[in-house]
Amino acid sequence: MVFCSLERLDDKIKTFSTFGDTGKGGVTRFSLSPEALAARTEFKKRMEAISATVVTDDMANMYATLPGSEVLPAIVSGSHLDSVKQGGNFDGVLGVLSAMEALETIAIQNIPHRHPLTAIVWTNEEGARFEPAMMSSGVICGKFPKEKMLASIAKDIPDYTFGEALEKSGFVGDIHNRLTPETYAALIELHIEQGPVLEAEGYDIGVVDGVCGMVNYEFTFIGQADHAGTTPMKYRKDALYAAVKAIQYLHDELDKLDPALVYTTGKISAHPNIHTIIPDEVKFTLDARHYDPAVIKQVLEIIKALPSEIVGCKVSYQEAWSRKSVAYDAKLVSIVEESAKVLGYSNLRIHSGPGHDAQYAADILPTSMIFVPSVEGHSHCELEFTPTEACAKGVNVLIQTLLSIDKQLS
Amino acid sequence: MVFCSLERLDDKIKTFSTFGDTGKGGVTRFSLSPEALAARTEFKKRMEAISATVVTDDMANMYATLPGSEVLPAIVSGSHLDSVKQGGNFDGVLGVLSAMEALETIAIQNIPHRHPLTAIVWTNEEGARFEPAMMSSGVICGKFPKEKMLASIAKDIPDYTFGEALEKSGFVGDIHNRLTPETYAALIELHIEQGPVLEAEGYDIGVVDGVCGMVNYEFTFIGQADHAGTTPMKYRKDALYAAVKAIQYLHDELDKLDPALVYTTGKISAHPNIHTIIPDEVKFTLDARHYDPAVIKQVLEIIKALPSEIVGCKVSYQEAWSRKSVAYDAKLVSIVEESAKVLGYSNLRIHSGPGHDAQYAADILPTSMIFVPSVEGHSHCELEFTPTEACAKGVNVLIQTLLSIDKQLS
Repeated sequence: MVFCSLERLDDKIKTFSTFGDTGKGGVTRFSLSPEALAARTEFKKRMEAISATVVTDDMANMYATLPGSEVLPAIVSGSHLDSVKQGGNFDGVLGVLSAMEALETIAIQNIPHRHPLTAIVWTNEEGARFEPAMMSSGVICGKFPKEKMLASIAKDIPDYTFGEALEKSGFVGDIHNRLTPETYAALIELHIEQGPVLEAEGYDIGVVDGVCGMVNYEFTFIGQADHAGTTPMKYRKDALYAAVKAIQYLHDELDKLDPALVYTTGKISAHPNIHTIIPDEVKFTLDARHYDPAVIKQVLEIIKALPSEIVGCKVSYQEAWSRKSVAYDAKLVSIVEESAKVLGYSNLRIHSGPGHDAQYAADILPTSMIFVPSVEGHSHCELEFTPTEACAKGVNVLIQTLLSIDKQLS
Repeated sequence: MVFCSLERLDDKIKTFSTFGDTGKGGVTRFSLSPEALAARTEFKKRMEAISATVVTDDMANMYATLPGSEVLPAIVSGSHLDSVKQGGNFDGVLGVLSAMEALETIAIQNIPHRHPLTAIVWTNEEGARFEPAMMSSGVICGKFPKEKMLASIAKDIPDYTFGEALEKSGFVGDIHNRLTPETYAALIELHIEQGPVLEAEGYDIGVVDGVCGMVNYEFTFIGQADHAGTTPMKYRKDALYAAVKAIQYLHDELDKLDPALVYTTGKISAHPNIHTIIPDEVKFTLDARHYDPAVIKQVLEIIKALPSEIVGCKVSYQEAWSRKSVAYDAKLVSIVEESAKVLGYSNLRIHSGPGHDAQYAADILPTSMIFVPSVEGHSHCELEFTPTEACAKGVNVLIQTLLSIDKQLS
């Protein structure tokens, strides 16, 4: 059994936490920002120090590869170094550090492997400065047209495009270095769970068998704006009360579906939003996720069954966006699970709620993910935390998984 | 019986609608703005044309007086010329125009009257640019300290005070011109209803017997912000769902009280208000109004009975402000009612939901109000409308009321 170094891993976490440090326990490290470029330089330096070959592709995705003993496609692991504004020290970056530590462990301990082993850094996963999220994995896996992505405008600088940021970064490489199904045999991404389940239920490792499908709807309620002091209740068309009744209806009906369904009414607005005026327009969003498309279909039926008029207000809704479920490669999922078992780590099959680069990669090559627990489920905030010991268990599973794939794949 | 001139009244309404005309059927005429000063100048010109004496007091309230045949305190009527942003052509200004038309009718027809008759223009009723509303009636009726009001800052110009605007207006007069119980015997304010009741129920005139008391509360729900895609329903503390349950509770319980109670949840906010994050803080307001303090007390009991925790979220609330009911002078209310009856106008005893300058005046001298219908209840918007014929009925009731008071008061 091969184990990573807790000290080295801890050093990696601490070092990378300095790039974009907010001083409040987290980082702001937008993709291609000076802070993110410093993190990339550190990645390159450390990987070259273990004699990995570091190249980049045309989207500035980075690939650090240890050669294998045979001429075979590589096995790749990694994630992203960018963060949201005031994000944490684990989302994304831990997947990169785990791949680095796995390769360093294998290199230092001279563990034989037939396939090349690659640590990957995806460019702009968060989409926090340049939309959309998972931009570069999306481009090279055929989800997004590259030209459109290059034209994406920064949220903070007028007319500043992702293409310009890319050019200035110094990390643009050859399009032929892109991850392809011919050059890569399998991909494993380690990530924090970003939810409370593993911690609350006492598991070391989440064996991620896929990504939940989701739908996102926006509901609109049109009533009539009247004076709060002069309009008898019977004459009112109160759009907020209509929205309240709709939210209660959604809870009542959606709660009857599979308990693994998660749904959220996260955003609400009222117009004119003045305490002495009856609201004439209220909007709220519904985000619903489940691994089974049949359950998502039931959600849509419940939405469609919403009355077209509630307390005199017109009800309408439209899909804002949706995502189909992604099933990870069954064989790789089993290898991850088996790797956790042989290491004696408690583990749970789990679906990912959020999106990850790995789900786009899953379209072109065998893919799976490893989750480690998030303390109190915090994520995308400075409170985001996973103890180094818990991270190390994830890295050990990753090493075991990479070596098992290396043995089992042709 | 004395009747006003429909043509003259129509001319007044049309002329005053040009001061601050938005071009969309309404006006923006903030207190002491150039548009409001132009309206004041027109008021002065027209009142002097019927030989009224026009003076102002230290808050720039304007008083245009026709002398009576005896040495008696004056009977006063009027309202305000300022509007909210993109307000209508009737709220406030119609009360001034009605007083002008009443005095003009009495002057031209040489109707004898013992008391002096005064048309009043109150400064800054809306509080749309300088808070609070009903500022100047509040000052001279002892509700607000004058120095504090002078320091009120414009919402649109940094550091520009109400006191500076007052000085620049050219309408500041002698403090001894203020309305006092010694110099004024009674006050009648004509106003549009600003609600749908008179029109919907087919009444010409609202006989206003008082102003509803009100309470305004802000409720806060504290939950926990978690990721919409990773947090099972059972682990959630959804502050929006807690607020939804509280709003439904308030509807369920408040609907059991007197049907004349009006209550409104007009303002809501959610934090962080992102579709993929469970809201951790939601606030909404409750405005409740009724003429009977006992009903308002029942409202408070219902608020107090709200659970301190709903769906795992902490519930708190605080009073933002409140106002006691005001009862208008019973004798004057009867005179208004009798005046409508002798003119053959259908009429309804009604409470005012919104506040008016008259309610402050009611503290220092006998006061009542006359309402005319608002088409579809629209107010504080460009759709605000009352046909001139309906306004004229109000003016006729006002003339009849002024002359009856003149006869009946010593």
